[in-house]
Amino acid sequence: MANIDLKKYKLGMIGLGTMGRNLLLNMADKGFSVTGYDKDLKMITKLEDEGKDHNLEGFSDIKKFVSQLEIPRTLVLLVPAGPIVDSVIAELKPLLSKGDIIIDSGNSHFTDTNRRVDELEKEGLHFFGMGISGGEEGARFGPSMMPGGDKEAYNVVKDVLEAIAAKVDNDPCVTYLGPGASGHFVKMVHNGIEYAIMELIAEVYGILKNGLGYSNEEIYKVFKKWNEGKLQSFLLEITAEIFLFKDTETNTDLVDQIKDEARSKGTGKWTSEVSMELQLPIPTINEAVANRDLSKFKSLRVSLEEAFGKNESKIDVTIDELEDAFYFSMISAYAQGMHLLVQASKEYQYNLNLQDIAKIWRGGCIIRASFLENIYQAYNKNNDLEHLFGDSDIQDIIKSHTKNTRKVIVACVNAGVGIPAFASTLTYFDTLTTARMPSNLIQAQRDFFGAHTFERIDKPGIFHADWNKLS
Amino acid sequence: MANIDLKKYKLGMIGLGTMGRNLLLNMADKGFSVTGYDKDLKMITKLEDEGKDHNLEGFSDIKKFVSQLEIPRTLVLLVPAGPIVDSVIAELKPLLSKGDIIIDSGNSHFTDTNRRVDELEKEGLHFFGMGISGGEEGARFGPSMMPGGDKEAYNVVKDVLEAIAAKVDNDPCVTYLGPGASGHFVKMVHNGIEYAIMELIAEVYGILKNGLGYSNEEIYKVFKKWNEGKLQSFLLEITAEIFLFKDTETNTDLVDQIKDEARSKGTGKWTSEVSMELQLPIPTINEAVANRDLSKFKSLRVSLEEAFGKNESKIDVTIDELEDAFYFSMISAYAQGMHLLVQASKEYQYNLNLQDIAKIWRGGCIIRASFLENIYQAYNKNNDLEHLFGDSDIQDIIKSHTKNTRKVIVACVNAGVGIPAFASTLTYFDTLTTARMPSNLIQAQRDFFGAHTFERIDKPGIFHADWNKLS
Repeated sequence: MANIDLKKYKLGMIGLGTMGRNLLLNMADKGFSVTGYDKDLKMITKLEDEGKDHNLEGFSDIKKFVSQLEIPRTLVLLVPAGPIVDSVIAELKPLLSKGDIIIDSGNSHFTDTNRRVDELEKEGLHFFGMGISGGEEGARFGPSMMPGGDKEAYNVVKDVLEAIAAKVDNDPCVTYLGPGASGHFVKMVHNGIEYAIMELIAEVYGILKNGLGYSNEEIYKVFKKWNEGKLQSFLLEITAEIFLFKDTETNTDLVDQIKDEARSKGTGKWTSEVSMELQLPIPTINEAVANRDLSKFKSLRVSLEEAFGKNESKIDVTIDELEDAFYFSMISAYAQGMHLLVQASKEYQYNLNLQDIAKIWRGGCIIRASFLENIYQAYNKNNDLEHLFGDSDIQDIIKSHTKNTRKVIVACVNAGVGIPAFASTLTYFDTLTTARMPSNLIQAQRDFFGAHTFERIDKPGIFHADWNKLS
Repeated sequence: MANIDLKKYKLGMIGLGTMGRNLLLNMADKGFSVTGYDKDLKMITKLEDEGKDHNLEGFSDIKKFVSQLEIPRTLVLLVPAGPIVDSVIAELKPLLSKGDIIIDSGNSHFTDTNRRVDELEKEGLHFFGMGISGGEEGARFGPSMMPGGDKEAYNVVKDVLEAIAAKVDNDPCVTYLGPGASGHFVKMVHNGIEYAIMELIAEVYGILKNGLGYSNEEIYKVFKKWNEGKLQSFLLEITAEIFLFKDTETNTDLVDQIKDEARSKGTGKWTSEVSMELQLPIPTINEAVANRDLSKFKSLRVSLEEAFGKNESKIDVTIDELEDAFYFSMISAYAQGMHLLVQASKEYQYNLNLQDIAKIWRGGCIIRASFLENIYQAYNKNNDLEHLFGDSDIQDIIKSHTKNTRKVIVACVNAGVGIPAFASTLTYFDTLTTARMPSNLIQAQRDFFGAHTFERIDKPGIFHADWNKLS
């Protein structure tokens, strides 16, 4: 009992890579007494170096580290998602007591988080998953954070999280989202939307470069101008800057030296996979995931371009038309993601508050954009909104942008410029606004060849027809 | 030992629903001594009734049933996929001996099949998964069958399977495909392609009905004519017939009475999910799955059509142009499915022979079409073909169909007719034939906000840029 006074830290970070270090520095800036642990001594040195103004202390001995934490101990994990999270938890467990709190802040799959919540609950430990978005800069100066799980545990760290979060109109970009793995689920969908918007921006780049013949300097100006208007967003902001960046070694624009094979860490594909399971259509996110995969078939693409003698013709669209098409498609991408959240909330009993989610995405995170204020206002008016397209203000925006969207897509289809995400945002819109789809034919076919039955529009029941009687 | 002579059946079917019954009748037609088991006495009666010309005997006592089978016992399961397969296996196991063979012919998920192979191998039982396609008619008079797993076990039933399979040029539409769960994997991809083609046909129906204002009688004529030419296929054949079918009760065309909410049993979504896992793009199959899901949001669609005042304008395309667009898109759908098989074969060491697969899909199965002969010939020339678009004959077809495909898609985009599958087949083509994609920008963005690094085109290695130095 004599050493209780030695327990001086309110929170301990496990994993002192850039994200973990920056979050700790952020907490220290806000006056919290925090510490960190990493096996790697170099990371400790970096932490203590960067945090010297706050006398930030790091440990490479996990027992000593844990012994320095106030009770209940609050541990934040920022280690790579997957088996490493389990091995760190296994290492920690013997050192913890009932009531201690573990917060997994990596990009864990929500089903792993569910499993861990159950496993640790049995041992009296609080576990919750919290997605963090904002990259290195966000972690250091204000991320958006998406915590879900044990609310009691959340309340213990609420003051820290609210202090370090990004702020929009003084509101912190963090709030308790719901039970279970809802935090990691919401972060996963955030990333799915991020994939879609990044793909749309890449397609705009393809149009500007190949369809309009713009130089990098001109492309920079387009994105910079867009970022000053209705399209203002973090992703457009950094995109503009990318086109200015010089590779000093080769004296060229760095973007031209980068391989056109897009990598991924899995959160996009998880979003698409879950949407398939929940039978909730998010075609633009699917296209974004599939097109990153497609980009990796480089040698096939090179040989097929040669075989088909591709010759993208120049296209005739204005930058303003393109801006409208991007705005329309971006809205469609957000709407698909939000719709998935609505469905998941029902299916997994997350009881998500969509307004809260829009609110904490307005700042700090990668998909922050001035349009999130529109989304926030839509749910402010009606938090039970089934789909963003159902909001009358958003309808007005969509209506005034549809014509130019069609024009841009038509131009690209005619010219052979690849625009899978753009095309899918429009075909999604055109299908979702169709009261009577041609899907009755699919049901007829299924009943014809497989006796899968069908329903009728004129009376209830399940029916089967003897289709073969004709032949 | 005295009752060995009583064991008189070469094969026993478990599950005497329409598919199981029809397969047994098919085997009996070919002179094999077979029997069946079902808990449900009504099914036994049906079997014995329909099979009275062959004195077909059925059992509702599983012990008695098993005791009547020749050693090694060969059991074919045709029960609903999922836990029922496991419970039937559990019921069977105490009654079987080492060397006996269980063939699962339902639409089991290939990962379940993997697990069952492992579990039963330990007990000395042979287990293999075999997808069957062709619906009720196919089962009765000649299906396409896709067996994979234990080759020794396959050889025991090879004669039965070859006898009952559909024939094309005297070749049976069945062959040993590969180890493990390869049979169920290939059947799953078959169904993924089926979803895509059915969605394309439904979109054609939407174009004919809403874009061109055709009556059901006129739509019938279009599909009938197409089925007599280069598009000849089972799915177009039954589609044509659907538009002739009268609902006698209401004296209307039945297709108009069917709900436009498409159902599914899961094989399409499994295909999309696996493609995400394998990072192999199959966007048109994804759109087909997502659009079935979308169709189920009926009340949302009705309210959004009202809100957006949808008014599909008539479109200006000819039936010949539409036919070309369908042909192009159908080829793209097959190509995506075959590409997934190539990737899965590498990943799971299935050592698939694509030529064999094309060969057994030419007859009996739901996606049989005269174009499968073209696919078969492409692999005949080069069985290591990475992608169908790489075959010079298929390239010639694609080249001569691209212009009209663009024309149809442009017309639909302008008119607001929803064509997610059509659009995705073309954007897939346009992207896959692009040597330099704009995906370098995605890598730059990922490195900018998340330090995810990138590769360069001018030198090997992994790089990270200090993008923020600009701001």
